[in-house]
Amino acid sequence: MIKKYLLSLQQEICAVLKAEDPELKLLEDPWNYPEGGGGITCALTDGKVIEKGGVNFSHVYGKTLPQAATLKRPELANAPFEAMGVSVVIHPLNPYVPTCHLNVRHIIVKTANGPISWFGGGFDMTPYYGFIDDAIHWHKMAKAACDPFGAELYPRLKKWCDEYFYLKHRNEPRGIGGIFFDDLNEEYGFQFMQSVGEHFIKAYLPIVAKRKSHAFTQKERDFQSYRRGRYVEFNLLYDRGTLFGLQSGGRTESILMSLPPIVNWKYNWLPEKGSEEEKLYKEFLVPKDWI
Amino acid sequence: MIKKYLLSLQQEICAVLKAEDPELKLLEDPWNYPEGGGGITCALTDGKVIEKGGVNFSHVYGKTLPQAATLKRPELANAPFEAMGVSVVIHPLNPYVPTCHLNVRHIIVKTANGPISWFGGGFDMTPYYGFIDDAIHWHKMAKAACDPFGAELYPRLKKWCDEYFYLKHRNEPRGIGGIFFDDLNEEYGFQFMQSVGEHFIKAYLPIVAKRKSHAFTQKERDFQSYRRGRYVEFNLLYDRGTLFGLQSGGRTESILMSLPPIVNWKYNWLPEKGSEEEKLYKEFLVPKDWI
Repeated sequence: MIKKYLLSLQQEICAVLKAEDPELKLLEDPWNYPEGGGGITCALTDGKVIEKGGVNFSHVYGKTLPQAATLKRPELANAPFEAMGVSVVIHPLNPYVPTCHLNVRHIIVKTANGPISWFGGGFDMTPYYGFIDDAIHWHKMAKAACDPFGAELYPRLKKWCDEYFYLKHRNEPRGIGGIFFDDLNEEYGFQFMQSVGEHFIKAYLPIVAKRKSHAFTQKERDFQSYRRGRYVEFNLLYDRGTLFGLQSGGRTESILMSLPPIVNWKYNWLPEKGSEEEKLYKEFLVPKDWI
Repeated sequence: MIKKYLLSLQQEICAVLKAEDPELKLLEDPWNYPEGGGGITCALTDGKVIEKGGVNFSHVYGKTLPQAATLKRPELANAPFEAMGVSVVIHPLNPYVPTCHLNVRHIIVKTANGPISWFGGGFDMTPYYGFIDDAIHWHKMAKAACDPFGAELYPRLKKWCDEYFYLKHRNEPRGIGGIFFDDLNEEYGFQFMQSVGEHFIKAYLPIVAKRKSHAFTQKERDFQSYRRGRYVEFNLLYDRGTLFGLQSGGRTESILMSLPPIVNWKYNWLPEKGSEEEKLYKEFLVPKDWI
């Protein structure tokens, strides 16, 4: 049932992105995982709106749960596991359209005392040029995804997201956040997963539609390529999903599909005082109650 | 004495690079380390030959040796330490000029039973388009750096380099290797460090001089930007120096100076059969006895 939902979520996300960006190329690549199971990678390229992206489904069986999945549950390390999920990362061409990320996953570990399972995931947004309206809309949708499951949920998962998507070596958040959760083993787990998937689409697509025709120049593209470097740093240094995937011998091209096109590292670059680029750092890359 | 040598090595490398690339801009940035000591970063930008690079000197004191430095010596974890070294990474503009890396370092750990110290480092080369002559020259110089210290040294450090600069998630070496060493506490440690520094210059500069005027088109630049992605993946996922630096709260801009300009990740890209790009994978990115 969860698997069927995840496959339909993948299809739905691909369909709404294609509708928003008719020239987008979608390439479906099924693959097998050596220890059992596999996935379907949907690579997005050469759109007018989306420069590069991916919508991945995977369902794998493994003999030993990787370290990256068990930091908080050392007793489960090396136990047999089953993991299924959908991951989405979108890198738009237009620097006024934010990069976004969604993940929903379900993990089952077989212990001597029976199976232990939990849900994890969330969505977060990484703008290059900030719009307060977009940030409010994004977080309202994040809250709406959580509200049916209790008023305490959104503030808790919002804070968790701010803490998780943080580049310690830069003292900098990755973006404006959203929600993040892990180790969720409530009764409502699967319903919540569906709510997260549904509200991700409601959160992101209107922003894409609103900003995709915003005029830009090479200057904004340069800033976007510079900021994309932070995305790479986060994913390769900290992201649990990326490290879990690589450590468990997952399909590298599917895992690293999250990495952006055209990235530029510059030594000690700083935004000009009073610029729109500086505004991103000062007004958006700060933990904030957006609603 | 070691510190004086390292500072002179930094100056010498900057001078020979500037001589080879007169338009190169060198920016010297001194910095302090919070727990004690500091460094001098020499950032290289906007050359005709070197697109981006860095020649870093650092000498820092820390209260607790980071995990990344002590994988093989768990008993030293969290002990007070002193670390000094020079790191060089050069990303040339011309795709026919290889990227190269040098590191020499000396680490002293203060234990209850007195200080323990060792040397580490090495140099390795990462071509985009391979030349057999260059690979042979590079390894001859690597061997020449080792030979005065025993015939067994080069084969051992060559193998170590092949094993270390390896992208497990790609089943791919980073480049054509060179030499790598760590935990070296022989009497000849400091002499060997000097030999490594000297032979790095003799190894790399003739290759730069020979290839820097090779004609290239956007096609070769695209391949270079794609391959640079592997360099980023290695440094952020595996490189002990990078992780040591970030974990010990080092200066991020100096540590990540190793990251290239203009990098491009493409989904599941493969070289055309029979192309020069495929030749790199088949003939150069394979462990080989080059001499």
